[in-house]
Amino acid sequence: MIEICQFGAGRIGKVHAANIAAHPSARLRYVVDVDNAAAAALAESHGAEVTDADSALADPDVSAIVIASSTDTHVGLIEAGARAGKAIFCEKPIHLDLRRVDACLSVLRECNVSLFVGFNRRFDPSFAELQAAVQEGRIGRVEMVSITSRDPAPPPIDYVRVSGGLFRDMMIHDFDMARWLLGEEPVEVFATGSCLVDPAIGAAGDIDTALVTLKTGSGALCQIGNSRRAVYGYDQRIEVLGAEGMLRAENRLPTSVEQATADGIRTDPPLHFFLERYEEAYKRELSSFIDAVSGGKMFSPDGADGRAAQALAEAALASLESGKPVAV
Amino acid sequence: MIEICQFGAGRIGKVHAANIAAHPSARLRYVVDVDNAAAAALAESHGAEVTDADSALADPDVSAIVIASSTDTHVGLIEAGARAGKAIFCEKPIHLDLRRVDACLSVLRECNVSLFVGFNRRFDPSFAELQAAVQEGRIGRVEMVSITSRDPAPPPIDYVRVSGGLFRDMMIHDFDMARWLLGEEPVEVFATGSCLVDPAIGAAGDIDTALVTLKTGSGALCQIGNSRRAVYGYDQRIEVLGAEGMLRAENRLPTSVEQATADGIRTDPPLHFFLERYEEAYKRELSSFIDAVSGGKMFSPDGADGRAAQALAEAALASLESGKPVAV
Amino acid sequence: MIEICQFGAGRIGKVHAANIAAHPSARLRYVVDVDNAAAAALAESHGAEVTDADSALADPDVSAIVIASSTDTHVGLIEAGARAGKAIFCEKPIHLDLRRVDACLSVLRECNVSLFVGFNRRFDPSFAELQAAVQEGRIGRVEMVSITSRDPAPPPIDYVRVSGGLFRDMMIHDFDMARWLLGEEPVEVFATGSCLVDPAIGAAGDIDTALVTLKTGSGALCQIGNSRRAVYGYDQRIEVLGAEGMLRAENRLPTSVEQATADGIRTDPPLHFFLERYEEAYKRELSSFIDAVSGGKMFSPDGADGRAAQALAEAALASLESGKPVAV
Amino acid sequence: MIEICQFGAGRIGKVHAANIAAHPSARLRYVVDVDNAAAAALAESHGAEVTDADSALADPDVSAIVIASSTDTHVGLIEAGARAGKAIFCEKPIHLDLRRVDACLSVLRECNVSLFVGFNRRFDPSFAELQAAVQEGRIGRVEMVSITSRDPAPPPIDYVRVSGGLFRDMMIHDFDMARWLLGEEPVEVFATGSCLVDPAIGAAGDIDTALVTLKTGSGALCQIGNSRRAVYGYDQRIEVLGAEGMLRAENRLPTSVEQATADGIRTDPPLHFFLERYEEAYKRELSSFIDAVSGGKMFSPDGADGRAAQALAEAALASLESGKPVAV
Repeated sequence: MIEICQFGAGRIGKVHAANIAAHPSARLRYVVDVDNAAAAALAESHGAEVTDADSALADPDVSAIVIASSTDTHVGLIEAGARAGKAIFCEKPIHLDLRRVDACLSVLRECNVSLFVGFNRRFDPSFAELQAAVQEGRIGRVEMVSITSRDPAPPPIDYVRVSGGLFRDMMIHDFDMARWLLGEEPVEVFATGSCLVDPAIGAAGDIDTALVTLKTGSGALCQIGNSRRAVYGYDQRIEVLGAEGMLRAENRLPTSVEQATADGIRTDPPLHFFLERYEEAYKRELSSFIDAVSGGKMFSPDGADGRAAQALAEAALASLESGKPVAV
Repeated sequence: MIEICQFGAGRIGKVHAANIAAHPSARLRYVVDVDNAAAAALAESHGAEVTDADSALADPDVSAIVIASSTDTHVGLIEAGARAGKAIFCEKPIHLDLRRVDACLSVLRECNVSLFVGFNRRFDPSFAELQAAVQEGRIGRVEMVSITSRDPAPPPIDYVRVSGGLFRDMMIHDFDMARWLLGEEPVEVFATGSCLVDPAIGAAGDIDTALVTLKTGSGALCQIGNSRRAVYGYDQRIEVLGAEGMLRAENRLPTSVEQATADGIRTDPPLHFFLERYEEAYKRELSSFIDAVSGGKMFSPDGADGRAAQALAEAALASLESGKPVAV
Repeated sequence: MIEICQFGAGRIGKVHAANIAAHPSARLRYVVDVDNAAAAALAESHGAEVTDADSALADPDVSAIVIASSTDTHVGLIEAGARAGKAIFCEKPIHLDLRRVDACLSVLRECNVSLFVGFNRRFDPSFAELQAAVQEGRIGRVEMVSITSRDPAPPPIDYVRVSGGLFRDMMIHDFDMARWLLGEEPVEVFATGSCLVDPAIGAAGDIDTALVTLKTGSGALCQIGNSRRAVYGYDQRIEVLGAEGMLRAENRLPTSVEQATADGIRTDPPLHFFLERYEEAYKRELSSFIDAVSGGKMFSPDGADGRAAQALAEAALASLESGKPVAV
Repeated sequence: MIEICQFGAGRIGKVHAANIAAHPSARLRYVVDVDNAAAAALAESHGAEVTDADSALADPDVSAIVIASSTDTHVGLIEAGARAGKAIFCEKPIHLDLRRVDACLSVLRECNVSLFVGFNRRFDPSFAELQAAVQEGRIGRVEMVSITSRDPAPPPIDYVRVSGGLFRDMMIHDFDMARWLLGEEPVEVFATGSCLVDPAIGAAGDIDTALVTLKTGSGALCQIGNSRRAVYGYDQRIEVLGAEGMLRAENRLPTSVEQATADGIRTDPPLHFFLERYEEAYKRELSSFIDAVSGGKMFSPDGADGRAAQALAEAALASLESGKPVAV
């Protein structure tokens, strides 16, 4: 039985806490949050205790920590956890500044501690099946990857301001998917973008609509399209063209009901947002972390994956700013 | 080059005439219709001549006739054609009275002339592929066939009155599909029906909504559902369950466009009615007839198929009237 | 907080126990099973205790019982539960003998206790949305209901022998769906069936392939098709034709992945069997029961629904045996 | 009745000739081709005559010409046709050299003659419905367009050598679709590409896999992905994201048959190539040309559209060669 301390009792913290509590080999031991009431409520609903970071990390029964607190707390907790010898799960990003990420990864190496980075989409049943099929060679060598990723509605403008921008905050997930599916590293990034959804996002120095093109050393191509608004719901699709076929994962709909009338045939819009679409992915993600901790296995995705996706986000930003492709 | 005389210049006559004219091995030589103006217009648009039945049948250059005139003229024209030694295509039904059908088939046998009966659905690309897959054994032995056949809207009540009723007029096509897909003859028919769409249909002694169950000697089952009204369009679907799988043919939509909005995802309703849905089927049907005439091959479906489907319609009517299953 | 005693620690018992344990307003207090080891294992994993029926029913803290033990124990436990004043959830069927069902329902009435009958399919998200759409009148008056329900593979022959036969064991779920969707009671039942899948099923006096036709007082029609074998997976589909449109609920697939190769486009087969397909339905079903107990609301489906579906199964059996439609 | 002379009796020439012949307001009067036998065969099958260009253009009964001969003959025939005052339909491209295109368009202006450029995809029923929906504002302002266009297999290498390269030969159709759907002109083009399918294509100085990004003055984005090989068939899809929804047109399949077995559910691969997929589009395209000639209406797409798409192809080539985005 793995005893776990979780940092963060917010929206995503609640998801992880419930998944830990439901896992047969794990136990939620502590919840830590600056909002004591939130921590207490979450702890109570899963039979855990509220404590502070130092106490939790000092408890030798705690063998793993799950970091779902705000981004600015990530590196501090990762490093403290590493020094305490805990197995670490952390939501992306490690830090918005890539140099700080590198410093953090150094600490992990020194402490010989592994980091599991929360790229939840790898655990989505459809995306996971698609990637497994690519790996098995069912469509031959990968030639072109297309990733569509659109939020139903833009986040609050206050969030936009501290988010690090669309590439670091939103497209980072797609950069991870791209690397995972291409099976090799992009060597060139070209980004273009616009502010079409909300002028306030532009005023905050960000874009809300973007297209990015990646090219790998072997010449495989990848396109990623992001929008902060898709009024029909959370749009998360991937397709991979290979020498021997094509694989694609379409959106998931809440029900299979079709309504045929004189106006046409109507089906449900896609699942609304990430909590609904990735419910199963979050469950499998935590399970993968817990199983790897239990079994002494390597983490995947790990800190290097977290860093690599973020490096692509930085390159995309540099491309957007310079108006030219950027070598990675 | 097969020279053809066509009887009937109405809606379906126009379809056949155009398909004859476009066929590389056939030529539309004559058009015959009680409505001289209609005959003239159709003949002109395809470079044919208007004539009467006797003259057409007496012309030795005419080797085949296509009968698309009103139902009450069918047996007379078939028998005259048979006596003139022409290859014959006739729209279903041969005659609404099964004894008269039998007499007609006797004349054909005496004259050693074959009859191609216009069960157009066998030539629909989807249904034809489905049946070929069944025959190739791709789903093993057939266990259950389900046929859904719904018109977009009921015919005029004057038509209903002379149609012979839903089983003889509408479900006869489905009985043919059932026989074709089951690969053996039904031995029992149970029919139930209601008048739900239009009380005038009931007042005319007919039903507009029906369910029929067939059972074959080996125990395979078949259900056929008909309605005179499906506001979303012409609903023509078939599914076959076998020991090793299931095949189904869904409706065809006019376009592949999907519109996703906050209200859901909308696609087109099915192709509106038989002229649209079976456009390709009519083309292939005439082509099959012409090719069989040219090549001296057997017709399929033939007069025996026409009779067998009609016998099932009679059995269904007897079942509806008696309220009990009827042996065939 | 509702304290619950669960009877039965088998396959479906485990599902219910987990759903009770995860419900915020319920607590699994006791597990009772003739197999003490199974009871102990299940109790332990959810922090419950093993006890016997008498002790559980005597505990005033227990306000509800969930019966998921073998069919022959149902009426005894329902009646004991009723006399102890507990709210009762029971898996279908109440009893294989309709007279014994009636006696049991009498006891419930005397004790003024309600029974929630486990027709899980009403809680499937797709079927529930479909039924809600019918009730809201989105397709107008219901004219024809088609229910397809096929198991991936037949049950063990020992189970077949004690199951009560296909109509009572398998199609009973579809009879419940039919009543729920038709919105009125069937007045006539015609059943036909065959043994096509496994001769051992026939030797046991049962059928494995069946078609049933229902007709209501107002003339609405319903067809139900069952097979004990669909090699492609658990096939659970419903469609409803109304005066103003058609609604259908298709199967759910495990993933949304499509693989396009020269051989065609391949998607996943449907979710394998009821534990997978109805996972969410079981969760919502227990939640509905618990919420109704908490809120003092009426149960739906209730004992009368259980009895009505079973009466249709009896009528189907009588029809199969007599070869004629049976009035209900 | 419009009398037409057609230049070119090859693969696409046969398609146009048949569509002219079948049109109620047009007559195929002449066929001109350097291959006399091909011209004679095509002329004969549609009741036309073989002649040479000068004679055809000198015939005052000929009011329109259809140019489907090899690319190097296009400008000469367009200019001769313009001087003879004929209405002109020409397959794309006008000429591979943009300056020569401009000179040709000047001649057309001088002669006050219009040119209909053969961008057949605008007449595909699905793409046409999609564009009409965009224009009607059903998804609000256009924000992002995604065009996928993949051939089933690469053309012969001899064709590749004279084709002008992937952008001018293949993606030119997609540039036209992009302009048509964006509703405004792109101002920036970024292209990247690889040779992944066949090294011989690379040896010929071309690419076989490409991604292009367009940006308009208002900030709308467009991505176009091309591959010379999709083993599953001709892949032609479009999607448009707007402020109020998303429209997409998926591939068309030859039949609607689904085969469900233990291996999954299989449907047909897409229609194989352009003759199959765009059969209906070619028919509607010629019909649009003939109707515009008959009715004295403006042509769409016209010479300016042909030039604009080609200018985007040139810009893409310049971007590929320079490795940087190019302003248009």
